[in-house]
Amino acid sequence: MATVMNKQVLLRDYVTGFANESDLVITSTNVDLRVPKGSLTALVKNLYLSCDPYMRNRMRRPDPLSPATAQSFTPGMPISGLGVSKVIDSGHPDYREGDLLWGAVGWEEYSVITPIPNLHFKIHHTNFPLSYYTGLLGMPGMTAYVGFYEICSPKKGEAVFVSAASGAVGQLVGQFAKMMGCYVVGSAGSKEKVDLLKNKFGFDDAFNYKEVHNLVAALKRCFPQGIDIYFENVGGKMLDAVILNMRPHGRIAACGMISQYNLQNPEGVYGLSLITYKRIRIEGFNCFDYFHKYSEFLEFVVPYVREGKITYVEDVAEGLESAPAALVGLFHGKNVGKQLVVVSRDLE
Amino acid sequence: MATVMNKQVLLRDYVTGFANESDLVITSTNVDLRVPKGSLTALVKNLYLSCDPYMRNRMRRPDPLSPATAQSFTPGMPISGLGVSKVIDSGHPDYREGDLLWGAVGWEEYSVITPIPNLHFKIHHTNFPLSYYTGLLGMPGMTAYVGFYEICSPKKGEAVFVSAASGAVGQLVGQFAKMMGCYVVGSAGSKEKVDLLKNKFGFDDAFNYKEVHNLVAALKRCFPQGIDIYFENVGGKMLDAVILNMRPHGRIAACGMISQYNLQNPEGVYGLSLITYKRIRIEGFNCFDYFHKYSEFLEFVVPYVREGKITYVEDVAEGLESAPAALVGLFHGKNVGKQLVVVSRDLE
Repeated sequence: MATVMNKQVLLRDYVTGFANESDLVITSTNVDLRVPKGSLTALVKNLYLSCDPYMRNRMRRPDPLSPATAQSFTPGMPISGLGVSKVIDSGHPDYREGDLLWGAVGWEEYSVITPIPNLHFKIHHTNFPLSYYTGLLGMPGMTAYVGFYEICSPKKGEAVFVSAASGAVGQLVGQFAKMMGCYVVGSAGSKEKVDLLKNKFGFDDAFNYKEVHNLVAALKRCFPQGIDIYFENVGGKMLDAVILNMRPHGRIAACGMISQYNLQNPEGVYGLSLITYKRIRIEGFNCFDYFHKYSEFLEFVVPYVREGKITYVEDVAEGLESAPAALVGLFHGKNVGKQLVVVSRDLE
Repeated sequence: MATVMNKQVLLRDYVTGFANESDLVITSTNVDLRVPKGSLTALVKNLYLSCDPYMRNRMRRPDPLSPATAQSFTPGMPISGLGVSKVIDSGHPDYREGDLLWGAVGWEEYSVITPIPNLHFKIHHTNFPLSYYTGLLGMPGMTAYVGFYEICSPKKGEAVFVSAASGAVGQLVGQFAKMMGCYVVGSAGSKEKVDLLKNKFGFDDAFNYKEVHNLVAALKRCFPQGIDIYFENVGGKMLDAVILNMRPHGRIAACGMISQYNLQNPEGVYGLSLITYKRIRIEGFNCFDYFHKYSEFLEFVVPYVREGKITYVEDVAEGLESAPAALVGLFHGKNVGKQLVVVSRDLE
């Protein structure tokens, strides 16, 4: 029983252009469920894995000009990401058998981790679905919290636009903005998602960008007075259309630009000279710079979740075998809500 | 003597593509040197006019999506800008005959102005060349001051890159950055300007962007550890090359993008998705939002100028007839230093 099979998802080779399921390979190896004596590692059983857009950048060949936050995966090795896990054995003084945690793990059934502060977190609120720690109560939640409250400098009554608005982060940004008394519009890629935005997440308006002929005009219709805050998840043409519609002193939180990650030649953005006249601030951020505020975030968000004032939609793929399709599907907008993979629901 | 000829520079018609001298027309009209009784206006004699890149945007046909700070000139009417003037007659209680001021005036020998706080300023330090109020002690000086100290959030020892670095604003930003103990590199468009940067303004290094085959590689050579601060004056390809070379948490003060103003189809910027990974902040600003700090700026800069610790290079065109060529020349980089036009040196 000390050694068991460990199913894994490997990167076949560096990816150019759109990622395909075949770029990821399912394989098996053995894993010893006990950590060596004197080791500071922990052996964890992975329960849920998070599919996140930034992972596409880690499939690229390393580029000396590309920064360390997008460090590439190693071909032939398991890819890694964020997940929810249970400690099976631990040599680390802060982690004990049975502890639940979320943080960086391999895409595999069992991982050996070296717990790192602000990269691994113990789970204390076990009365919520554990999968929420891949989304609402994990990195996407912190991203929405930091991005909206710290980067967007929001004020009551302002006009907020969110792209990829039904995704893991967008659905929360929209709800935070409504709680603050903003006018909130979202874009998404299907009728189903647009309906979610309007009817489940309480956006004031929403549109399907795939059915819009002229993004500039569509935004003008939604925001006749202009946009104060843009929560940027997609990049490319949408960013250009937004800049044209921004109000003076507008703010753009650059959370991500998923429309660009799979393009060999990214789209140009042509309207940047307007940011001077309009005094626009565009600011990239990464929630990992803010994880010292994680407990503050939980104190803020947990009561709202408990009272049902914040809702969260997940798109759940069953089994590690479904992980490649789930991850690749993100880049085609197949997910409705936060995409995650269930590796195991068995807490024993 | 109450009515005199008033030479003026008119906009012939809205301009598309590169502005030409022929887009501006010299004409004459009559002007009454006395202001009507009860009027709150002042009649000023213009001494120096400032040629500024943003003026190109005011030659465009008005665009409903374009912001008010770039309000278009009216074809057939004198263009306007900033200048240094002497009050000939005034109905305004704060201005008297003989006062010197700088601020918004027409491109003409005499202007009727309605003095507006933070758009017209009395000149008190008359022991400096009056032309400095079109540059070092005027709007470009404030732009460099606000842009560098407020927008760039500079720290001692940081790596600073300035484009259009020998221009009205750039030459000051470089000197401010050196005073703070930064490593400073500038780009400009001729050997003469590069020599100025290195030998007169004290930049650590400088290059002629027109002789560089690969901007990304040129910046990499100047900044092997990357760029912390980019003071953006040009836009387009340079911005893309800088983003690739920015360090994490870098800041870009978007002062202007002169390379784009005369293009019918602006260049695309392709590397924006890096701003998320690198947590870059790009911020457009306009010094007119900060003119409540103008006296603070003068208190800061005047002692340095007096002690010769800050130097300033002007490119002086003689006579209103030379004004069209001087303004248009800006967009071809013909000016060496701050471009201005002498309308009159006669203070009487």
